[in-house]
Amino acid sequence: MNVLVINCGSSSLKYQLINSDTEEVLAKGLCERIGIDGSLTYQKAGLDKEVTTPAMPTHKEAIQLVLDALTNDKTGAIKDLSEVDAVGHRIVHGGEKFASSAIIDDEMLKAVEECNDLAPLHNPANLIGINACKELMPNVPMVGVFDTAFHQTMPEKAYLYGLPYEYYEKYKVRRYGFHGTSHSFVSKHIAEFLNMDINNSKIIVAHLGNGASISAVLNGKCIDTSMGLTPLEGLVMGTRSGDIDPAIMEFIANKEGLDIAGVMNVLNKKSGVQGISKVSSDFRDLEEGMNDGNKLCEAAIEVFSYRVAKYIGSYVAALNGVDAIAFTAGIGENAPLVRKKVVSYLGYLGITLDEEANGNRGKDLVISTPDSKVKVAIIPTNEELAIARETVALVK
Amino acid sequence: MNVLVINCGSSSLKYQLINSDTEEVLAKGLCERIGIDGSLTYQKAGLDKEVTTPAMPTHKEAIQLVLDALTNDKTGAIKDLSEVDAVGHRIVHGGEKFASSAIIDDEMLKAVEECNDLAPLHNPANLIGINACKELMPNVPMVGVFDTAFHQTMPEKAYLYGLPYEYYEKYKVRRYGFHGTSHSFVSKHIAEFLNMDINNSKIIVAHLGNGASISAVLNGKCIDTSMGLTPLEGLVMGTRSGDIDPAIMEFIANKEGLDIAGVMNVLNKKSGVQGISKVSSDFRDLEEGMNDGNKLCEAAIEVFSYRVAKYIGSYVAALNGVDAIAFTAGIGENAPLVRKKVVSYLGYLGITLDEEANGNRGKDLVISTPDSKVKVAIIPTNEELAIARETVALVK
Repeated sequence: MNVLVINCGSSSLKYQLINSDTEEVLAKGLCERIGIDGSLTYQKAGLDKEVTTPAMPTHKEAIQLVLDALTNDKTGAIKDLSEVDAVGHRIVHGGEKFASSAIIDDEMLKAVEECNDLAPLHNPANLIGINACKELMPNVPMVGVFDTAFHQTMPEKAYLYGLPYEYYEKYKVRRYGFHGTSHSFVSKHIAEFLNMDINNSKIIVAHLGNGASISAVLNGKCIDTSMGLTPLEGLVMGTRSGDIDPAIMEFIANKEGLDIAGVMNVLNKKSGVQGISKVSSDFRDLEEGMNDGNKLCEAAIEVFSYRVAKYIGSYVAALNGVDAIAFTAGIGENAPLVRKKVVSYLGYLGITLDEEANGNRGKDLVISTPDSKVKVAIIPTNEELAIARETVALVK
Repeated sequence: MNVLVINCGSSSLKYQLINSDTEEVLAKGLCERIGIDGSLTYQKAGLDKEVTTPAMPTHKEAIQLVLDALTNDKTGAIKDLSEVDAVGHRIVHGGEKFASSAIIDDEMLKAVEECNDLAPLHNPANLIGINACKELMPNVPMVGVFDTAFHQTMPEKAYLYGLPYEYYEKYKVRRYGFHGTSHSFVSKHIAEFLNMDINNSKIIVAHLGNGASISAVLNGKCIDTSMGLTPLEGLVMGTRSGDIDPAIMEFIANKEGLDIAGVMNVLNKKSGVQGISKVSSDFRDLEEGMNDGNKLCEAAIEVFSYRVAKYIGSYVAALNGVDAIAFTAGIGENAPLVRKKVVSYLGYLGITLDEEANGNRGKDLVISTPDSKVKVAIIPTNEELAIARETVALVK
């Protein structure tokens, strides 16, 4: 079965066509600057990237261009659209309505729309992509895969904030968590990779990318995660602050003459390791800066790693122990220095880092020594494949 | 030496007269509704409380009334003011200027004043009390003891937020921490009580009162604490939210039609276990409610205890292990149910609760079983005695 995986943002769209039997990526790419000028990247497996700049006034034209590229005579991955058996859409926020992926139909779309005010930037964009696909491929079954769904198993003590309860009743203000597709994929995969019985397991997944979050997974079910109502909470990220004293917002608003939206803009776009370092949100730049003696780059890496270690520590308490810890996503897979710093706090769990193994990047690999009481591993995430699997499971 | 300990709020003033040699409290009490109508409570050791309602237009009259009560012919604890050898003042915020207590002189007061905008409600009130005492007892040495001082040993990775670094440079936005006098007192005391070498120790102090904070203390020095720029961050408290997704502030502001100050008021005064339970900020009420089947009271206790356990877990990582955990302050000393719930998460540290011991309240007591690898104890705090000790150390 061929599954087209679509991840639609407000002015961009990432896609992959995956053969779900072989789990091969047949083609992939992205549309950028939708509604502005438009740029299409397309790459058939084994061939070079093609970049074109066709007009792309709306997501509908963008998706039409993707479908044309997938089926074009020369470098198309398939002959015609009848070879697309299903479409899997990433949807950011499923609120409390979706604890798992769901077949897209009118009722389902209405429920997604009701979650829009929890993710006002993301959900409407996701819906635009879905509707454009429906118009162009009316008879192809489609599935929505939610960033929040995996975390819906969290107990009340983990999802309730210390806020007036009526905010939960009236507005559903609670912890939701994001990156759920990745946390689900990686927690399942590390259990397989380590030959663990997932039904009797305590796993912590550190998804460390430009956006970063950690989750605690007990017997395959998420019991806590660091992102909250929105993806701003938790770890220090590329440009996002993560946890701060909430009173800082008023303090900064007064000092800088900003309103609440102005402060939010700073917390989302000018903070994190970018804000601390004044240099970059990219860990390669930070490490280079640190090696050149830049103290703020070093501070940014230290603050980031320390916060990760503290979250892992708190989730060891939430789980009352831990069997395995997975590092995933851009930084988790590719930054040995960060992994080393994080693991340096965890000796009390009986973990010793295998320094040589830790020098590797981007492949399934145990990086704790054989005698470590808790296994630590690099587990590359693959959200597109996870979405394809979820899609197949529902449409088969 | 007799030390008068003064803790001055904007309209209240608590005091104790302590004989620093015997560490006996000679008399204690408080002034309330200063500037409104005035109420003075005075109690000499061994006698009943006396409550009077004299006029108390400013803190100066309040302190004069305290001094009169301390020296009155009938129930005075001392004959005349010459028996007050020193005054110790609690000061909330010492910023980065004070890493320890300090003799009060003009230069010191100027430095405290410069911290006012970090604690605009508290520091000015503290200064009013100091100035009133100086007028009435110009020749008595005075010492300022800061809530923040003990935490000034935190490393950069613990005190820096994931915010633009210039906020730290320009406005000193960073983690300060509070309850430092209590964290210092209790961490020293548990080491003595357990015959530990404090210079080779990893201690976590859970100060759980209406305001609540946790600290990680390595070899007698604080390396991290849960309160931040202000006392709003960290644990869920009586009426304070503690940690939330910062984005919740904008969400609530929009939904409820509040400005940032309005949201801050909710987070400080209408949140915490009061907000979750809709019943009370007092754990006795919450426990009663829970026992009567009130699900929100139960949720409030669960959320509170779970957050405490997660902070302990994160500080075990910060310390890379832990030797002893102290419960202190109102809830920490008097709520066996909360201690039991918190400890229930910590089995992975080799801790087993001694249920019988845990039934006790308000006295130095080990509540972990003898075979537990980490000692857990109730350690009553005594901030006034700590202030008296600090004062004596500086004026002697």
